[in-house]
Amino acid sequence: MKLIRFGDVNNEKPGVQLANGTKLDVSAFGTDYNEEFFGNNGIEKLKTWLEENQSSCPEVDDNVRLGAPLTRPSKIVCIGLNYAQHAAEAGMEVPKEPVLFFKATSAIVGPNDDIIIPKGSTKTDWEVELAVVIGKKASYVEEADVFEHIAGYMLHNDVSERAFQLERSGQWVKGKSCDTFAPIGPFIATTDEIKDPNNLNLWLKLNGEVMQNSSTSDFIFNIQQSISHISQFMTLLPGDIISTGTPFGVGLGLNPPLYLKPGDVVELGIEGLGTSKQNVVVYK
Amino acid sequence: MKLIRFGDVNNEKPGVQLANGTKLDVSAFGTDYNEEFFGNNGIEKLKTWLEENQSSCPEVDDNVRLGAPLTRPSKIVCIGLNYAQHAAEAGMEVPKEPVLFFKATSAIVGPNDDIIIPKGSTKTDWEVELAVVIGKKASYVEEADVFEHIAGYMLHNDVSERAFQLERSGQWVKGKSCDTFAPIGPFIATTDEIKDPNNLNLWLKLNGEVMQNSSTSDFIFNIQQSISHISQFMTLLPGDIISTGTPFGVGLGLNPPLYLKPGDVVELGIEGLGTSKQNVVVYK
Repeated sequence: MKLIRFGDVNNEKPGVQLANGTKLDVSAFGTDYNEEFFGNNGIEKLKTWLEENQSSCPEVDDNVRLGAPLTRPSKIVCIGLNYAQHAAEAGMEVPKEPVLFFKATSAIVGPNDDIIIPKGSTKTDWEVELAVVIGKKASYVEEADVFEHIAGYMLHNDVSERAFQLERSGQWVKGKSCDTFAPIGPFIATTDEIKDPNNLNLWLKLNGEVMQNSSTSDFIFNIQQSISHISQFMTLLPGDIISTGTPFGVGLGLNPPLYLKPGDVVELGIEGLGTSKQNVVVYK
Repeated sequence: MKLIRFGDVNNEKPGVQLANGTKLDVSAFGTDYNEEFFGNNGIEKLKTWLEENQSSCPEVDDNVRLGAPLTRPSKIVCIGLNYAQHAAEAGMEVPKEPVLFFKATSAIVGPNDDIIIPKGSTKTDWEVELAVVIGKKASYVEEADVFEHIAGYMLHNDVSERAFQLERSGQWVKGKSCDTFAPIGPFIATTDEIKDPNNLNLWLKLNGEVMQNSSTSDFIFNIQQSISHISQFMTLLPGDIISTGTPFGVGLGLNPPLYLKPGDVVELGIEGLGTSKQNVVVYK
């Protein structure tokens, strides 16, 4: 199943996208895609509900804006330097265990919303990433049990301001948390749709030119290792987002580096998880 | 006004603590202390409501557990190394601008709940801190306007696992986010109660012995500077928590270092913001 949310900013409604691309409004199911939904077997309940009610769900027009496909989670945990070639382009060593940082959940926007270059920014950069949605509370989870705690997968552009991240007195969160720095979606693909999340192609284009093109099979720490590791340090709650790191090909790694400017268009995609497209604008 | 929440874990109700120490149940006011409450002038509305309804509010027994005095916020932003003597004891330079890191909101517990030493921990440490509660959305706020965006102040023990924070492949969040690592409260003091938050004594005792004893007048970056700075990098939402750093006297800074062990008792307090007390237990 593909979960979407649609409508105006802060007023999104839950929906599903069918195999043929048709989008349906499932507001009548009665709950948004939030912690309670994921934590109380909402995906299975929604599937069952749809068997009875699909024919009465209104269609959503293709012109309607998509929001992020879940409500604001308790946290976004990101894994840094999780592809060897990307660690090299960032001038950093391959880590011995997953590097973790947080991204403010206030950065979340819809998959096709604008990226706003923040005030004072000269180094806003792109990062295509596979994001995991937690389905079941996870604390001290063994690698073998990780998949029981996952609700689904989605596409994420982990937009990053490199000067804020690396040149402003420490801790990466400063360069990761600006408003609009987390375009997410178009949809959550539930786990039954993705055979092997550790083997998905992912790519990103800037103004039509391919900048990143890799596979999650190049992970240094795969999904089981990453989530088991995070769960040793904190409890992951239903709906929490784990973003698994970006492959080679960010602007920071180019010679000379290349950063986003107003008018740029960023497109990205992951096999089985759809595509998104952001226009880059300046803060007003 | 002093805002409290009381009752069983995950089932807390809102209350107020009167000047004479009496605690009142204000559930009948109709809303918990959450983003909507702070963002919609809830403090003023509650004050007005109390003028009419105080006499009919049930008293809360002193034996009832206190929860954190607000619901889970969108984020906890912490300022690192914000007292010069503490930067020195941590072996770090005084930063040129505020160091920011996040703490998982899943770490929040009540002021007198147990601190659980996480699995594998050998370096769980204490940090008394002044925490600020945001009252009004804050983005690109000038220093002169910061106080308009503050709802109140509270006591916070920014519990930290030093090995997780400093020896585990980077980014401090790993050592800051374990469950129970954010005992908060006993109450939020609204801004009218605190004349100058940049001049408050704060202290922490371990098993009765004073370990930290300082004043927020020793801040490297005061509250106006800190919050204005954070708001250049992300939007602060009503109910968000800013923890302003800890003074000299943590376990990491002792020679030899001293860390928490099961059976220890931590007590802390800030002038005008009450005291809290945590028993240290081991993860089971």
